[in-house]
Amino acid sequence: MDETPPLSISTYNPFGDLIGLHFDSWGDGRSLCRIELTPKLLNPNGVTHGAVLYAMADTGMGGALLTTLDGGRYCTTVEIKISYFRALRSQRLSCESWVVHRGKRIAFLEAAVSDDDGLVAQASGTFAILEPRGAA
Amino acid sequence: MDETPPLSISTYNPFGDLIGLHFDSWGDGRSLCRIELTPKLLNPNGVTHGAVLYAMADTGMGGALLTTLDGGRYCTTVEIKISYFRALRSQRLSCESWVVHRGKRIAFLEAAVSDDDGLVAQASGTFAILEPRGAA
Amino acid sequence: MDETPPLSISTYNPFGDLIGLHFDSWGDGRSLCRIELTPKLLNPNGVTHGAVLYAMADTGMGGALLTTLDGGRYCTTVEIKISYFRALRSQRLSCESWVVHRGKRIAFLEAAVSDDDGLVAQASGTFAILEPRGAA
Amino acid sequence: MDETPPLSISTYNPFGDLIGLHFDSWGDGRSLCRIELTPKLLNPNGVTHGAVLYAMADTGMGGALLTTLDGGRYCTTVEIKISYFRALRSQRLSCESWVVHRGKRIAFLEAAVSDDDGLVAQASGTFAILEPRGAA
Repeated sequence: MDETPPLSISTYNPFGDLIGLHFDSWGDGRSLCRIELTPKLLNPNGVTHGAVLYAMADTGMGGALLTTLDGGRYCTTVEIKISYFRALRSQRLSCESWVVHRGKRIAFLEAAVSDDDGLVAQASGTFAILEPRGAA
Repeated sequence: MDETPPLSISTYNPFGDLIGLHFDSWGDGRSLCRIELTPKLLNPNGVTHGAVLYAMADTGMGGALLTTLDGGRYCTTVEIKISYFRALRSQRLSCESWVVHRGKRIAFLEAAVSDDDGLVAQASGTFAILEPRGAA
Repeated sequence: MDETPPLSISTYNPFGDLIGLHFDSWGDGRSLCRIELTPKLLNPNGVTHGAVLYAMADTGMGGALLTTLDGGRYCTTVEIKISYFRALRSQRLSCESWVVHRGKRIAFLEAAVSDDDGLVAQASGTFAILEPRGAA
Repeated sequence: MDETPPLSISTYNPFGDLIGLHFDSWGDGRSLCRIELTPKLLNPNGVTHGAVLYAMADTGMGGALLTTLDGGRYCTTVEIKISYFRALRSQRLSCESWVVHRGKRIAFLEAAVSDDDGLVAQASGTFAILEPRGAA
């Protein structure tokens, strides 16, 4: 987790920029990202849209899995389930993601989203591991 | 599905505005929303972020369920699973959502996200039905 | 759906036999299986164990997918989500399963479990498509 | 985890008996159950049916949640997602389950199924907490 995030994530992530998502660290099959909540992220109920937490989990799990892939391999999300536990109590959210099991072509990850008071949502996802673009 | 969307959805949905989500119709436990994809919705892989499709499904299912609730009751997402089938082939996405089963306190919904070529993602979700704010 | 189930399913399915699961039909990416509930299938609450409905969905979706595979390819379950809607009201359950999307290596299926009064549970699953055993 | 399992679980669990499921311990929002695999639990592929692992997770999570409920309250499964990681390598399976978050009416649990070589499947579930039967 002490590695510097590669340039590719820090400099090109339009949707991440749109919602204010930043990676704090990643490496060894784990990642930690965070977001500062703003009014533009509210849903019709006046609370942060669940898709913001989902975006943290999806992006975070993809980033965690990427740290275990070499030779240009990359990954895409097959499916994710996310569960919401309670209302948010702070303006800062963090999301820790980790690889639970990695096969040759399929990986399973989990992510935990927390505010200042603790766990607020949890996600698990299946990701497909893809060969480098252009490879046979 | 021929009802005019209530003002509450059309006029207050900051996160929906941020990503360009619009409801075309809703009523009778169904909803139809759409989005025009823009470069700001891309992920680090250069394709539309999966959270955008998730936002359509989450918002669409919540909207569909709301059409079946009266007396000020509202709903929150308990959990959603979303599966992605293939790369997008058009700039327009639509999402149809519907109530599959509604109990007194818990409802189960599904959502199907399509581009111009057909189905690209499918989601199912559990929602909690809540009494009006301020009710005993 | 009018095809006679292949011998492989009707004659070798020990766990299916244990719980009394039978296929009525399968073909064209769909399957229909059923079960007659007996006291040995009850859980500690005195109602049919949810794993029985899960077994119908898992087996049914696998069977439905198999009908679309040729040349000895087969499949395994990657993940399944199942949701339960209400208490059962009859001793007979049926489960209809169908392929929603099939890629080269991954398929997405759904299953609906019903009693005599209608829908009681719904499942969605990701399956991996595998090359014939012994193939390179 | 050092509590003796209540009689209700050890003496009445017909489906658990059918598949050979036993609880080793439960308490404090956790449970540990196990199973010895037998030929009657095989699926058409000749490997243990995924529903057996699902049954361990479902029963185990329900048992874990029950240890946190008092006054006659009980629980039912709303939905469970289970993911399978690899083929089994031993005849013994164990399943550890724990409460991740418990609200007033809804709880979220996880379960991890292992063989002698380690983790083989993981599940997460939403459970409804119900008032005592006969209560207003």
